[in-house]
Amino acid sequence: MKQVQVIGLEGIPEVRPGDNIVEIILNALSASGIRLDNGDIIAITEKIVSKAEGRLYKLDDIQPSKKALELSNKIGKDPRIIELVLRESKEIIGFGEHFIIVETKQGFICANGGVDQSNVSSGMVKLLPKDPDESAYEIRTSLEEKTGKKLGVIIVDSWGRPFRYGTVGFVIGASGITVLWDRRGHRDLYNRRLEVTRVAVGDALAAFASLIFGEANEGIPCAVIKGLNFLGSGKASDLLRDKRIDIFRR
Amino acid sequence: MKQVQVIGLEGIPEVRPGDNIVEIILNALSASGIRLDNGDIIAITEKIVSKAEGRLYKLDDIQPSKKALELSNKIGKDPRIIELVLRESKEIIGFGEHFIIVETKQGFICANGGVDQSNVSSGMVKLLPKDPDESAYEIRTSLEEKTGKKLGVIIVDSWGRPFRYGTVGFVIGASGITVLWDRRGHRDLYNRRLEVTRVAVGDALAAFASLIFGEANEGIPCAVIKGLNFLGSGKASDLLRDKRIDIFRR
Repeated sequence: MKQVQVIGLEGIPEVRPGDNIVEIILNALSASGIRLDNGDIIAITEKIVSKAEGRLYKLDDIQPSKKALELSNKIGKDPRIIELVLRESKEIIGFGEHFIIVETKQGFICANGGVDQSNVSSGMVKLLPKDPDESAYEIRTSLEEKTGKKLGVIIVDSWGRPFRYGTVGFVIGASGITVLWDRRGHRDLYNRRLEVTRVAVGDALAAFASLIFGEANEGIPCAVIKGLNFLGSGKASDLLRDKRIDIFRR
Repeated sequence: MKQVQVIGLEGIPEVRPGDNIVEIILNALSASGIRLDNGDIIAITEKIVSKAEGRLYKLDDIQPSKKALELSNKIGKDPRIIELVLRESKEIIGFGEHFIIVETKQGFICANGGVDQSNVSSGMVKLLPKDPDESAYEIRTSLEEKTGKKLGVIIVDSWGRPFRYGTVGFVIGASGITVLWDRRGHRDLYNRRLEVTRVAVGDALAAFASLIFGEANEGIPCAVIKGLNFLGSGKASDLLRDKRIDIFRR
């Protein structure tokens, strides 16, 4: 019987710039009586990673550019936020009322480039971690060192998608796991070789973890996934489709 | 401690047209010693639902139209499969080598309209269930009647996505659960009202279930999710974004 357990980690305090995420997670695990085993995957919301890394700006400190002011008039969004979105992006993909969809410098395509006012104090905004694969690597290696276990780490954000309503979690940083599972050599029930199946394991894990986190004030910024066999050496950036082969970017 | 369990149901035999999915699932649950509880969500791959509903075609029986033959020349794909894709679709969204992205009659946007040759015997193809929300409703009410429990059911398919490599599970049919969770009244950690957060619960569940199923020959077409509180009255079609407000369809 294939059995997977996902445990939402409660009791994590408000994270501040400079905090050590690994210590915070280990303390919460210990307080909850949860032991890590080899193969466990730790899912963490980008919100606490970004905060610990000090990726916070005071809106009043931001001077919007002419381009940001123009876009602000078009879409009805604070020009200072637009300014930050533009600074964090390499390309504008599209926009509409109150939102811009961009490709961020990290290569993610999401609304407002991950620039976010929710769950930060008033007048502040939060950017995505600068290099979330590197953040995941740092957290994983430190967790492994302190526990003696082989672990995976994913950092998760929630985005809307084309064609469908509602947000789901996406992996933005990963270390120690297979993020894109290539099954093209495998065979189906009828012994026919699978043609195109590569599975976005990292996004599937992120989607479920994000449900456990909730989006509002539950205070569950971290989950432990037990019982899957996905240790590997992937990165979240493995999932970024080359724009030259993306029919939705032509 | 918030704890969720996902159990992959083994021992489900090859499903054939006319088979009773509910009987098959109940037998497998009983053989595995798994008891259903109130609130459990049963995730089922569309493959066995389609097969039970007889949504299978012999390729040799399909006469491709002129339009299918033309498209076949352009993209290098069997014109008989293209013919079925066109019959199942209301709009072509885009195409490339070996694939067409369509909006199916059910409103899903996916490659090849869910017309699929994997895990069916040679020379055959499988379409999506005709009305998967209705299929989910039938399965749920029958499961509830036979177990006396309040349950949720989702039917899951795996698709590729814009911007990102790899497939993930999407919900194509649902009954008894909240599929789109509207959190716009909720407040964040700083007591600020959430602006736009609606969570695609159905897709998050489907993404994770699909990982448990695997894609090839594991023979796990069904999973039981225990420990979440998402009973409700949603449908998979709740997630279908109106094309008039989809900037990726302009």
